[in-house]
Amino acid sequence: MRTLFSVDDHIVEPPDVWSSRVPRKFLDRAPQVVDSGDIEYWVVDGEKMPTIGLNAVAGKPENWTADPVRFTDMIPGCYDARARAEDMRSAGIMASINFPTLPRFGGALFPSLPDKELADVCVRAWNDFMIDEWCAAAPEMFVPMAILPLWDPPAAVREIERLLDRGLRAVTMPEESSMLGMPSYYDDFWDPIWSICEESDTAICMHIGSSGWRAFTPPEANFTLTIALGSVPTITHALGMMYSPVPRKFPNLEIVYSEGGVNWVPATLERADRSYKLHQRWAGTDDLLPSEVCRRNMWFCMIEEPYGLRIRHEIGIDRILWECDYPHSNCVWPDTQETVDELFAEVPDDEADMILRTTAEQLFNWTCAPAP
Amino acid sequence: MRTLFSVDDHIVEPPDVWSSRVPRKFLDRAPQVVDSGDIEYWVVDGEKMPTIGLNAVAGKPENWTADPVRFTDMIPGCYDARARAEDMRSAGIMASINFPTLPRFGGALFPSLPDKELADVCVRAWNDFMIDEWCAAAPEMFVPMAILPLWDPPAAVREIERLLDRGLRAVTMPEESSMLGMPSYYDDFWDPIWSICEESDTAICMHIGSSGWRAFTPPEANFTLTIALGSVPTITHALGMMYSPVPRKFPNLEIVYSEGGVNWVPATLERADRSYKLHQRWAGTDDLLPSEVCRRNMWFCMIEEPYGLRIRHEIGIDRILWECDYPHSNCVWPDTQETVDELFAEVPDDEADMILRTTAEQLFNWTCAPAP
Repeated sequence: MRTLFSVDDHIVEPPDVWSSRVPRKFLDRAPQVVDSGDIEYWVVDGEKMPTIGLNAVAGKPENWTADPVRFTDMIPGCYDARARAEDMRSAGIMASINFPTLPRFGGALFPSLPDKELADVCVRAWNDFMIDEWCAAAPEMFVPMAILPLWDPPAAVREIERLLDRGLRAVTMPEESSMLGMPSYYDDFWDPIWSICEESDTAICMHIGSSGWRAFTPPEANFTLTIALGSVPTITHALGMMYSPVPRKFPNLEIVYSEGGVNWVPATLERADRSYKLHQRWAGTDDLLPSEVCRRNMWFCMIEEPYGLRIRHEIGIDRILWECDYPHSNCVWPDTQETVDELFAEVPDDEADMILRTTAEQLFNWTCAPAP
Repeated sequence: MRTLFSVDDHIVEPPDVWSSRVPRKFLDRAPQVVDSGDIEYWVVDGEKMPTIGLNAVAGKPENWTADPVRFTDMIPGCYDARARAEDMRSAGIMASINFPTLPRFGGALFPSLPDKELADVCVRAWNDFMIDEWCAAAPEMFVPMAILPLWDPPAAVREIERLLDRGLRAVTMPEESSMLGMPSYYDDFWDPIWSICEESDTAICMHIGSSGWRAFTPPEANFTLTIALGSVPTITHALGMMYSPVPRKFPNLEIVYSEGGVNWVPATLERADRSYKLHQRWAGTDDLLPSEVCRRNMWFCMIEEPYGLRIRHEIGIDRILWECDYPHSNCVWPDTQETVDELFAEVPDDEADMILRTTAEQLFNWTCAPAP
């Protein structure tokens, strides 16, 4: 069995993440699950959230038409860390990075709450849950990643410092902050976060769907078109970061684009580099090409891309990470090993190992136990 | 010298396109050039247009910081068909398709005028200019392409019929009609146009920048980022068309995406096909894969893409067309032959010929004279 490192999986938060952690005075406004009989749903600061288990369909291929509305609609691996660890281990996935569901993939929910004191306890409760409960269930497997108090970068620095001692390896941030009512990443507002991440070798994971921006689709188009265009916001945002002051001020920053795919990278860089050079004089831009930023500061994640693998050396083989995406509809589980074997049939073992495990091990300072 | 067919060049309309053609009662509202001393500009139905020669910088590499503001800022090949034909011939470009400037690349300006009688005479005047003056100056070189009265598809059919006898080979339409206050291409509103184009073997050319939609960029970002992201609206729109009813109802339609590049095609199709199959059951979609529509109904245009050429067989070599983009900043002129020789150095001659000439000849029913 191959030993796999998945850099993109998802936790469906169990009901007591916040109720068992926030101070009593926030209990009625912190996230809680309400059972209405037909469905269970989260309520956050009086607002009803649309789903209990956004896209948590692993092991239930017959039930993709709707998001799960009760915990009993899901297999336990969605919300129970011990069950998850067993599911992972059985598939040879020996390390896993997990994104939040209720707080949104980039942690943008709590920053949108008007009461920042409430937002702050909610952020810290999720992070404590992540480390004390989720990761603690299988500390050799679950790589600690935090959400941040995005409205207050110095507070985010303190939160990162608080968690570094407890094993933090990554933070999740939204792809495009300025679409969420916050300053854009071009603004030095964010510098404290970039600075501590660079200094502490903490990777920044940005997941598709976290920016609130998506590719235009005609009003009559089926939602599957939006899904098929899922790379577009990542392409757009990653190129924006390549052009931005961020990698110029923080040359050792590590940004990981989750679920955006890898196969588009050479095409995007070819057009960007040509355009950068063509317009450099009048635009007054520096000599750092988009492709140079990309190959120094960015990593991209692949589920199943035979073409992406064929062009792996054009992408840069050390830029490619593998993900399972458990428990979403995209995920390659439980037939993970078979899928990976077929996908990597033509790839030499040393190159497959880089993509499936060792690049991620280096990036997140992690060592996988061997698969059973 | 190689014989080249350029499927994307641009006319800067000379001042008398409309003034010499529209009925007297429209003269004061049809487009006219006003000389204010410092600059010349177009006025259309009382509205001042921002530039006389949008991006018409061919032969003037030192002057890219601003669009030309007087005809004397440009070389004559921008607006004079005879001078253009000489410029083309000297570079071995023996066939050329030309997009409008003032009417916008997809012809969306006149449809936005409130007075549709005025809009109609303006559309017809441009088309008469295109055929009687521009193409007539070098009828073996300039491939007739029309703009359409987009607000009235039956009228568009009549206009196409009027021009077919005079050699029409293509029409230009905007990439995304619904962003321009018109029905989306998913609506059967457009069926008369698709129908006559299919029936008469008339290609539909859609140019980047014609939809009014563009990729998101942070407010502080330099405009060169938008330029570098120039493929994104094409990727988005082309995939939307692959998913749409249009190719399902009109299986022989020919759509050409101009200046959107070619190198992104396999990556986009890989993600789209996987997603299409993954979600087919719940979405209730048919068995026609996005890649099948693409390889049957669509063509893509390349200026200078070494990587795009390396993956030409993944794209489908018969999907790739070449363009010069005269007189825009992107254009490879006057050193066209040198650029093409270098770009195609590793490509066998028969494959280079397909991309540089013969696929376009078949698509537009055209035969190039041999280069001098």
